[in-house]
Formats: sequence, structure tokens, C-alpha cells
Amino acid sequence: MSGGSGGPGRKIAELSLDKVIHERARLMILTYLSSSNQGETGFTELRDSLGFTAGNLSTQLRVLEEAGLVGIEKTFRDKKPYTGVRLAAAGRRALERYLAELEVVVASLKGTRKEE
Amino acid sequence: MSGGSGGPGRKIAELSLDKVIHERARLMILTYLSSSNQGETGFTELRDSLGFTAGNLSTQLRVLEEAGLVGIEKTFRDKKPYTGVRLAAAGRRALERYLAELEVVVASLKGTRKEE
Repeated sequence: MSGGSGGPGRKIAELSLDKVIHERARLMILTYLSSSNQGETGFTELRDSLGFTAGNLSTQLRVLEEAGLVGIEKTFRDKKPYTGVRLAAAGRRALERYLAELEVVVASLKGTRKEE
Repeated sequence: MSGGSGGPGRKIAELSLDKVIHERARLMILTYLSSSNQGETGFTELRDSLGFTAGNLSTQLRVLEEAGLVGIEKTFRDKKPYTGVRLAAAGRRALERYLAELEVVVASLKGTRKEE
């Protein structure tokens, strides 16, 4: 509390690091979706770009969809089934909050480099 | 591969996000230890600053100690048992690698804000 280590401690204690987002595979998916320039990303592109198995990607997308963070649409492209995944508005907002927390972590970890 | 969404995808696919460090509670502990100015932090200070139960903190510290990321020393202070926790050299190096990965995530997430 009295200055020094109290400051970072309080900030760190406040980190919620949303479990749905923080899990490694899901964080990779969300980061990919968020950095994709398209509004929608194909299941196949996601799978191949991230190097996931189809099974794992499906499982993680279901979790993200149930949490309302992504939208999934099954259609056809060139007569072939096509699954499109997009970041939902709620997903974008949740990522913004998560990002603000990551920045606290990054700042805390970076701050200590000088002391070495 | 051809520019655009290929670049971030490859970077994101390469994220290892070390499980021992990435887990929320352990990340909070390591971030606290790393941002503490002291070489050593007391178990009680960690517990109270992070709002953990003693049981949870003990469990997580054991995982971190077994991974060689922290060192734990039980001594006495004013005739009372005192448990000191410090970031090990390997822990500091592992955090540096993890930090570099977080920065990729942060940059990817930040990069997309402009497009909104």
C-alpha cells in the first residue's frame, strides 16, 4: 500500500484475464480473426494458418460462439460447404478489455528490465 | 503468405505461450515478483497483494518452483517462520520470452483498432 510495490500489486490483483479469451488456442484464434483484414475468415484458412487440427479448432470455436465472441456461418462457395468465422461485436469489445489488461502485464514486465 | 493476412497469421501460429507462465494465477504471481523492487517477496505479501488463498498460492508456487522459475526459501524473521519467494534466473529468461510473445499479441490486437 505504501508506494513502491503496492502500486503494481494492486493493478496486477485486478487482472481478470477472461478465461474464455486467455486460453492459448482461443487467444490465437481471436488474435488472428482480429488482425485479419477481411470481415470473415474461412474455417480452413484459420485451421491451416494456425496449424490446428480441425477437431481442436471446432471445439474452441464452439466455446467462443457460446460465449458470444464469434459468429459462425455455414454456407456454400463454388458449391462446396464453406464455414465463415467472424469476430462478433461483443468479441471485439471483450478483446479490447483483455488488451488493456495485457498492456498492464507488459508494462509491469517491461518496467523491471531496467533494474537488471 | 502473399502479404495481408499471411504475415500476422504466421506470427500468431508461432506463439508458444508457455503454459506454466500463461495460466492466469501464475502469470499474476510472476508479474508481481518481476515488478517487485525487492529481490525476494514474502509469501504473505504475495497472498495479500494478489488476493489469493494460501492454498491456491502454495499450489501455484509449487508448479513454478518445479519448473525452475522461482526459488522458495523458508527461514525465520523475528522468530517467526518466513517464506521468501524470488524469481529465478531461468524464470526471468522465460518471462522475457513470454513478454516478447505478448507483444506480438498486443501489436496484432492494436493494429486492428484503426480499421474500426
